[in-house]
Amino acid sequence: MATTGAEQIFKEFREHSAAEFFKKNRQMLGYSGAGRSLVTIVHEWTSNALDACEEGGILPDIEVSIKKAENNRYTIRVSDNGPGIPKNFVGKALATIFAGTKFHRYMQQRGQQGIGAAGCLLFSQITTGKPIFVKSSIGKGKAYSCHVALSTANNKPIITDMVDIDDKFQGLSVEGEFADIRYEVGEHSAYEYARRTALSNPHAQIKLTDPNGQEFLFVRSVNKLPARPPPAKPHPAGLGTSDLLDFAHVSQSRKISSFLVDTFARTTSNKISEIREVDPSIDMDEDPKRLTWEQAEKLVNAFKKIKWMAPDASYVVPIGEAQIKIALKNILNPDHMSVTERKPQVFRGGIPFVVEVAVAYGGNSGKKEAEGFSGNILRFGNRVPLLFDSGSCGISKAVNDIDWKRYNIDMETQPVSIFVNISSVYIPYSGVGKEAISPEDEIIEEIKLAVMEAARGVQRYIKGREQVNFNANRYKTVARYVKQLSGDISDLTKADRQKIEKKLEGIVSKHFPKSRDEDKEEATGQETEEEPT
Amino acid sequence: MATTGAEQIFKEFREHSAAEFFKKNRQMLGYSGAGRSLVTIVHEWTSNALDACEEGGILPDIEVSIKKAENNRYTIRVSDNGPGIPKNFVGKALATIFAGTKFHRYMQQRGQQGIGAAGCLLFSQITTGKPIFVKSSIGKGKAYSCHVALSTANNKPIITDMVDIDDKFQGLSVEGEFADIRYEVGEHSAYEYARRTALSNPHAQIKLTDPNGQEFLFVRSVNKLPARPPPAKPHPAGLGTSDLLDFAHVSQSRKISSFLVDTFARTTSNKISEIREVDPSIDMDEDPKRLTWEQAEKLVNAFKKIKWMAPDASYVVPIGEAQIKIALKNILNPDHMSVTERKPQVFRGGIPFVVEVAVAYGGNSGKKEAEGFSGNILRFGNRVPLLFDSGSCGISKAVNDIDWKRYNIDMETQPVSIFVNISSVYIPYSGVGKEAISPEDEIIEEIKLAVMEAARGVQRYIKGREQVNFNANRYKTVARYVKQLSGDISDLTKADRQKIEKKLEGIVSKHFPKSRDEDKEEATGQETEEEPT
Repeated sequence: MATTGAEQIFKEFREHSAAEFFKKNRQMLGYSGAGRSLVTIVHEWTSNALDACEEGGILPDIEVSIKKAENNRYTIRVSDNGPGIPKNFVGKALATIFAGTKFHRYMQQRGQQGIGAAGCLLFSQITTGKPIFVKSSIGKGKAYSCHVALSTANNKPIITDMVDIDDKFQGLSVEGEFADIRYEVGEHSAYEYARRTALSNPHAQIKLTDPNGQEFLFVRSVNKLPARPPPAKPHPAGLGTSDLLDFAHVSQSRKISSFLVDTFARTTSNKISEIREVDPSIDMDEDPKRLTWEQAEKLVNAFKKIKWMAPDASYVVPIGEAQIKIALKNILNPDHMSVTERKPQVFRGGIPFVVEVAVAYGGNSGKKEAEGFSGNILRFGNRVPLLFDSGSCGISKAVNDIDWKRYNIDMETQPVSIFVNISSVYIPYSGVGKEAISPEDEIIEEIKLAVMEAARGVQRYIKGREQVNFNANRYKTVARYVKQLSGDISDLTKADRQKIEKKLEGIVSKHFPKSRDEDKEEATGQETEEEPT
Repeated sequence: MATTGAEQIFKEFREHSAAEFFKKNRQMLGYSGAGRSLVTIVHEWTSNALDACEEGGILPDIEVSIKKAENNRYTIRVSDNGPGIPKNFVGKALATIFAGTKFHRYMQQRGQQGIGAAGCLLFSQITTGKPIFVKSSIGKGKAYSCHVALSTANNKPIITDMVDIDDKFQGLSVEGEFADIRYEVGEHSAYEYARRTALSNPHAQIKLTDPNGQEFLFVRSVNKLPARPPPAKPHPAGLGTSDLLDFAHVSQSRKISSFLVDTFARTTSNKISEIREVDPSIDMDEDPKRLTWEQAEKLVNAFKKIKWMAPDASYVVPIGEAQIKIALKNILNPDHMSVTERKPQVFRGGIPFVVEVAVAYGGNSGKKEAEGFSGNILRFGNRVPLLFDSGSCGISKAVNDIDWKRYNIDMETQPVSIFVNISSVYIPYSGVGKEAISPEDEIIEEIKLAVMEAARGVQRYIKGREQVNFNANRYKTVARYVKQLSGDISDLTKADRQKIEKKLEGIVSKHFPKSRDEDKEEATGQETEEEPT
């Protein structure tokens, strides 16, 4: 057997940049398939635009324009009325993977990784070789424009054509030319993305112009910005030893005790005393920069033995029941809706999150099928619609685990939409493309509770409607059995099918011709009493 | 409304390393949940070990040992008999994200990213603060051992305690101490991972020692290494403009024409003439280093207009029908199996891949349920078992899209295993954790064809068995309708249920007491004629 030496093998050893990695594995960023790739671009730029506006304290006005270009290409432009990007940051912000303002801050935002915008640029470069065109306000009636490219070999931005312009334009506009994408309609489209964004962001106005020039305007239905969540302090109950060490080693505090109080939520001097009592061997006067793994582990273990107040709810800002109702009314106009508002919970010991659920029935809820309707799940993470990868998403898992029959809801045949939004300082997405949420136990459990709560509200509504049809349906079922049974008997015995059917129908109808008429009357009588929500 | 200026916002701007990113988003590497995290470690180290042995031309002998340590920790060690790692590469190979021998080579291997091993180390550091312990042979009875850590701030290795040892040990052994993991049994366990690895690698011997000290040995059933696939040349039909430019700009060739012939598969001087004919405006004498996007795009367009030979099948080495049968027999010992061997196909225009499918029925196939069995899908990418994320995997999608009833197979109740292995120089995993394959159209289509082909084989077998039970089952169905119908009639009419049931049974049994006996005889008669495969 010919063996190859290790030295020989390792001649091929190379290091690569994050940009090279994602260039090769673009599907991990959501660039798989022409239809999804287009939505991914809209998704990334739109969610950045919303974050920017909110961070700037401005009610968002977002315009998404998708135009056909030559050679099966598209030009996509997303512009906002936010604060813009200072010149010296534009390259890093739009053309460097793993860079940004969001990654290290423990704060509820749509973006959290510093990958999305650079991924869009990478995809334009891969498919058309072109940089993106950027225009940004810089205040006082001034703006600039430039082209931004990304050097994949070293993950660095390349800025060209930087021009100062006198322009009252306020905000940021990014525009790119892409191939290997396609504008589609349906459940996984840019239109659906915009519609769902409007659902979860009633304070934003969104205009989508499709490649035929048709404009879709989702008007602002709430004239107030959501409360801006402050950057959170991490909660001690959710800390790992490694995290604690990272914080300690960059701390400016002189003692462990003051480091803990300064850095973490709910950590008062009383708590320091409690920690001392739980484990007297921890030296609270030590310099945090010199904290060892062993000491840090002792601290983490002590944290777990203490009763902490839950994380401050102000770190996490849900959409809110009233706003969800306005948005659902505006977009789905359902016959009935039930919205649950629940308290913040924590996962991984200390990361706060809030689950909001609405179940909407009738109107434009659910999904239109060739015949009738089916139910659908509208998933959101920090108000960002998640359109893809539902098969591996914790939200879908939680919703599908529910025994819907118990709530008189049939997801196969009814016009029902299950709206689920998770708000958190950190959403544990299962992939870099951020389309599915990792099925953490605490999150799954909380979604189920919230969904069941909302489902009960819709159940009461449906029950009222369904009672009237109950007996009529029962009769239909029995009639179906008669047909099936007589067919089966006839198949097996070659006896005349119609004769058998008649005989069986005789037995059935002798017993309830009366109840059948009653059902019909009851159904007609009650249906006129229904009131839409 | 208080607005915040852009300068203020961008004060928070930071750049991060890939290691920092994956430390924060560990679930993206497969570290979500204690059970899955343990399997992820075994998965990464084992697949690296198999790659190393095969690259060294050595029949793999892999030992996986999982031991309980103090404080709910585990020690995991994976050792192989491969070529080992030269001292000067050990840090980069095991402790640098995006580094390795595999990323840039267009070659069928298990690893392809340079993330897995560094991810294991990252997870040991996050959970226990400990480096991993490495022992490697360096030839001539010499070996070394050392500790390897990863500096997350800059994604660089830290090597300590390097010791030369006189030892006849051949291969590589990596050992780490982890918390937040748990040894579990069942469908998503280290045992199942080892078992499936044995299924797809009959040339490997795998020993797993569980935390109770119990040893599971999956013996080698084939004493021959798989053919070693050569590094492939990319096929022109699958090239994007951006890829072509990347190749051109590092080419040593002096002219476009020779660059094309030297770099790409199936590109002969005849093909160069054809390209010239398709687009005479392409300057074939230009220096490839000076190739522009426009010229490259012309070339790519010309490539698409030419008829190419399919990629050389030798770039992709499937397991092979004979070996799959040996492995299935060895591990599942089914009553029947059908294996399909198909020709290489291409996706994304030019990336060659081969799909192999086996459908196994009976024996240890399928999944044992509380009552009876259900079917399961055994997914593999380049022989690596994919245990998680089946909901978003193209293999599951393809298999579940099949109308199994047409093949007399009921995945809900029958002991059937669908084995699917995709071999390719590049497998488009949908996530960094490499547990699901992106649903590329060509791959889905080919899996379906292969599965249907194998299913037909099993169908013939099942049909033989099922025919004998057919009439008996039919009678049971009819009897069930009778029960249901009489219950319904009785519910609605308050008439005596038993009376109605008797009346209906009368009608039925009058018509086929005879056929009922015949069924029974036939069933008994044929069952003895069955032959196991």
